[in-house]
Amino acid sequence: MSALSKLKERTAEVSRLNEAAAVLSWDQQTYMPPAATAARAEQVATLSRLIHERITADETGTLLEKAAQETAGSDYEGDDAAIVRVVKREYDRRVKVPAELIAEEAKTTSLAHEEWVRARKNDDYKAFQPWLEKIFDIERRIAEHRGYDEQMYDALLDPYEPGMKTSAVERIFEGLRPALVELIKAIRESGVEVDASLLKRKYPVERQVEVTNDVAGRIGFDFSRGRQDRAPHPFCTSFATTDVRITTRFDENFLPGSVFASMHEAGHGMYEQGIPESFNGTMLREGASLGFHESQSRMWENWVGRSREFIEYYFPFLQEKFPESLGDVTAEQFYLAANKVQPSLIRVEADEVTYNLHIMLRFELEKEMMAGRVNFSHLPDLWNSKMEEYLGITPPNDADGVLQDVHWSAGIIGYFPTYALGNLIAAQLWEKICGEMPDTYGRIRRGEFTPLLDWLRKNVHSYGCKLLPSELIQKITGQQIDSEPYIRYLRSKFGEIYKLNGA
Amino acid sequence: MSALSKLKERTAEVSRLNEAAAVLSWDQQTYMPPAATAARAEQVATLSRLIHERITADETGTLLEKAAQETAGSDYEGDDAAIVRVVKREYDRRVKVPAELIAEEAKTTSLAHEEWVRARKNDDYKAFQPWLEKIFDIERRIAEHRGYDEQMYDALLDPYEPGMKTSAVERIFEGLRPALVELIKAIRESGVEVDASLLKRKYPVERQVEVTNDVAGRIGFDFSRGRQDRAPHPFCTSFATTDVRITTRFDENFLPGSVFASMHEAGHGMYEQGIPESFNGTMLREGASLGFHESQSRMWENWVGRSREFIEYYFPFLQEKFPESLGDVTAEQFYLAANKVQPSLIRVEADEVTYNLHIMLRFELEKEMMAGRVNFSHLPDLWNSKMEEYLGITPPNDADGVLQDVHWSAGIIGYFPTYALGNLIAAQLWEKICGEMPDTYGRIRRGEFTPLLDWLRKNVHSYGCKLLPSELIQKITGQQIDSEPYIRYLRSKFGEIYKLNGA
Repeated sequence: MSALSKLKERTAEVSRLNEAAAVLSWDQQTYMPPAATAARAEQVATLSRLIHERITADETGTLLEKAAQETAGSDYEGDDAAIVRVVKREYDRRVKVPAELIAEEAKTTSLAHEEWVRARKNDDYKAFQPWLEKIFDIERRIAEHRGYDEQMYDALLDPYEPGMKTSAVERIFEGLRPALVELIKAIRESGVEVDASLLKRKYPVERQVEVTNDVAGRIGFDFSRGRQDRAPHPFCTSFATTDVRITTRFDENFLPGSVFASMHEAGHGMYEQGIPESFNGTMLREGASLGFHESQSRMWENWVGRSREFIEYYFPFLQEKFPESLGDVTAEQFYLAANKVQPSLIRVEADEVTYNLHIMLRFELEKEMMAGRVNFSHLPDLWNSKMEEYLGITPPNDADGVLQDVHWSAGIIGYFPTYALGNLIAAQLWEKICGEMPDTYGRIRRGEFTPLLDWLRKNVHSYGCKLLPSELIQKITGQQIDSEPYIRYLRSKFGEIYKLNGA
Repeated sequence: MSALSKLKERTAEVSRLNEAAAVLSWDQQTYMPPAATAARAEQVATLSRLIHERITADETGTLLEKAAQETAGSDYEGDDAAIVRVVKREYDRRVKVPAELIAEEAKTTSLAHEEWVRARKNDDYKAFQPWLEKIFDIERRIAEHRGYDEQMYDALLDPYEPGMKTSAVERIFEGLRPALVELIKAIRESGVEVDASLLKRKYPVERQVEVTNDVAGRIGFDFSRGRQDRAPHPFCTSFATTDVRITTRFDENFLPGSVFASMHEAGHGMYEQGIPESFNGTMLREGASLGFHESQSRMWENWVGRSREFIEYYFPFLQEKFPESLGDVTAEQFYLAANKVQPSLIRVEADEVTYNLHIMLRFELEKEMMAGRVNFSHLPDLWNSKMEEYLGITPPNDADGVLQDVHWSAGIIGYFPTYALGNLIAAQLWEKICGEMPDTYGRIRRGEFTPLLDWLRKNVHSYGCKLLPSELIQKITGQQIDSEPYIRYLRSKFGEIYKLNGA
């Protein structure tokens, strides 16, 4: 038996355990009774420990070395060479960090999460501050163990966006920031007022459920290989290409909160469903990176869902579902409302133009905190002054400011930039798609989504995580990640909506 | 660190893996998309293999020996001594059977299950026959490996009803059978006709859902530590005492199919919720046996749910929920309909009087098949002639005859008797309960279920699986399992309904 075969067998077990852990997590966020939290934590911890033990075992290292020799010179994009690369990446990342530090991280973040929930509820940053300091201290130590070439932040970014460097993100964001600030200023000064109040009328939840299932199915989410459930925070997870779960939430007085969120999660879900079935049970059954994943969700949510063509196509159906609230509304009014630009406090509610500024703010603060240059007692002030600088608004409290995101309490540092990268990748793919298929918007207007999905399947999904994101974007577009297409997209779309001359 | 502590640590991991596997199984039966079957099988197989490896490892055997010495002389009912006994039972049962045979069983039953589904659908026993032969052959070999003192069937019965011997079941059933046959004859000859057609009126599913949640909650199922979902076949499972899942199903034209099934599953669920929280993560967090488990479900379904007192209490609520179908019905009519005795083809639809005869039929055939005394091509004839002998009816086809149960296709042999034992145990417990709390029926009439549940918690649930079923029934009632209380119960209840003189 070859070392490669043994490696595959070993990592198949890891994949199955990861899948089982994902089922437990899905259940926890959808159906699990609240009293079960402690037991569930023990179950997940047991699986996590077994996964970690198996990946970091000496035998894995030995098999990796031999398998690398066996596959040397084989097709770079072939399954075998890719499996060795992907497993090696995971092995290297894990084996360098002492198990006790991982355990300390798990324990601290588990407690910190509860403290964060409480602190946010009570708008009490001071109560959360020591936990935040502890977490950043732990993440610093983890980063040191992992090692990095340029900046410490690289070691945290890499698991989410393999191969991406902090310096590259900085360059990309530096190009993007002034364009966004300028566009927001132009919109503010345009004098055009979009009325979005129609989105906050009454939309009975039961009918929203029907709409979200309908829309996800229409754009191509395969319900025979997945399902949609309700959860406090929308997410997508998968246990196989044949078992992809998306979730959404409902607010009776805010329609986009479910409809566009559902298209977003369906975008993630279609990525998972588009990975080849032969990758099931292997470590190739994943998206190329979080950025690439987000490019799929944002594309279906915004480039498709918030386009005039889609809304012209879908609005009659919405109107039929909600005649009391949409009977007197036109598709054009709905389109404008769904695309209103308005600097706001909360990232997850931000429009397409302001969204990335929320990300940059977090990216900059994370880097500063990792570098030990932040006095944590001043963090809310730093947050608020950056909000004022980028978006022209100041949070009235910390609950809607520095305490708004779950990520830091969970030890998730280095994740935020991938949201913005996803937007940029989406714009790059979109230009490529419209170049190859000029009638893309026409098809959307006619409700024909299969050509778009097929393109994404062929060019993005079918690779799983075989290629690094930089390799995949280069292969598809001939370019590296770049903010220009995104800026062009925003200027064109919002220039039209806000009647900006020459924008 | 003592051997006992190490044993606990080792088996805690096993418990967590068992819990994770149970979550995956629950999901498969409730929400999983159908296309995910193959992936789910791999996930469950991986967990099962890890569980088996851990329990049967040499180290477990060594720890067990040392821990037995450490706990020698300690309180028999104490946690420590009980853990050693329970783990030893599981270790002995597993370690004797070669892993390849277990794998062969898993593979064969997995394929056989699909063949059974098809065969039952097509009423094609011949197609299923070779699989049935294979399965009984495998189970015979497993039984031989496990070993037995008296009959081979003992080795299959023991995992479900620890310590119970086939000969004991035979003695019990021999006492029960003539009494049931006689009672059925008397009912048939009574001339009393019960009209149960009212149960088959229209009962909208949505309102049935509300009723099943309502009734489970009223009798004591704790929804903060559990939930109820929909599944094709009702079942109960649990992942901790704080996470107990019950399921039910709905037929718009058959109300008892959901309401009484829900009380049945809630009975199982309250057993799981009544096990001490300190047993979480240990192998003590289980019922004493399947028979004891079934005693709880049948008690809440039949002794409580189908009692005149409960129906008098609950019927007004049902009437309010279903005014179109129950507006012209009295509680007494509903009571009689819910207790109609009528020999029928399908076990799971059988009434309290005829139910156990279905079990005896299966028990007898299983023993004959295990002993190699059955020509499998004659099995349908054997089944049908026994149906005629016990119940006076002959199945018109094999789908509603020998092919009706899932058990054999899944390699579950030795399980059926526990259903009947559950009825007998329930009757024994019930006599004890009514002796200690003479107002039990009065309380049910008033909707006061807490005293009954408290009694069961204290006398049954709190032991988990610390004691063998024979030890537990002896401790509670001073008797071994016995059919007399059950016969008394049936004669009294149905003698009154069917006006049997002196019954």
